[in-house]
Amino acid sequence: MAATVAATACLTFAHPAVAQDVKPDRAIKYRQSVLRAMDYNMDILEAMVKGETPPNKEVAAQSALFVEQLSHMPWSGFGPGTDQGAPTKARPEIWKDPEKFKSLQNDLMAATAKLAASAKSGDVAQWKGDFSAVADACRNCHRSFRAR
Amino acid sequence: MAATVAATACLTFAHPAVAQDVKPDRAIKYRQSVLRAMDYNMDILEAMVKGETPPNKEVAAQSALFVEQLSHMPWSGFGPGTDQGAPTKARPEIWKDPEKFKSLQNDLMAATAKLAASAKSGDVAQWKGDFSAVADACRNCHRSFRAR
Repeated sequence: MAATVAATACLTFAHPAVAQDVKPDRAIKYRQSVLRAMDYNMDILEAMVKGETPPNKEVAAQSALFVEQLSHMPWSGFGPGTDQGAPTKARPEIWKDPEKFKSLQNDLMAATAKLAASAKSGDVAQWKGDFSAVADACRNCHRSFRAR
Repeated sequence: MAATVAATACLTFAHPAVAQDVKPDRAIKYRQSVLRAMDYNMDILEAMVKGETPPNKEVAAQSALFVEQLSHMPWSGFGPGTDQGAPTKARPEIWKDPEKFKSLQNDLMAATAKLAASAKSGDVAQWKGDFSAVADACRNCHRSFRAR
């Protein structure tokens, strides 16, 4: 059963087949962990964008790199059957409209790649704009797929 | 105070200065999230190593890449002052012997880089050996610095 769920997840989300038996609660906690880590790094960047902390190229570049890397990781944790099994704000729409969900994932990953590149380049105005685009991509997905 | 803590953390752990005010509970939950996500991907690899799931080059390469990327992320969450503030198994020795802690971090990051490379190459015998080295690096650090 779990193997079937995992296999179906791959077809649905076009991720590599995760062949192991992933229990729903493990998958839910995994995706939450990744998203929490992404949020932490976004907060570091946001503090600079808002002027709450002085701009620091090295910190910005590292946080943006981590955000980009993390943005690829949570999706395998949203396989079918993982709509429950642990407390989650994931809405059933994720599994009802996987194409839209996938499209918003792609939007996020495209935005984080731009942010990582501009933060590395040190162009502050550019990376602040790219940061906003990533934040928008987060919000767009949450609006449709995360319960309040 | 928090800014001082963050600045000291950088000197101690040689990470980029995280200039924002990171509250200890946030830092603790961040590092736990990253380590949990690393553990999840290690479990995917371990299931293949143990023969519980069939070897899959694409899955192995992706999981190993995620492990490598994640292995760079938790350390900024261990700044001074983050020995308490949320439930944690981090032992006080982390802040008493930062050089040893840093050395074990470096061992882990060196091991995960090898694993990511061999898993990408598809040399199954090689990556299974490199997986064991990463697992050893995890255990070495836990033995000294994580409470049971």
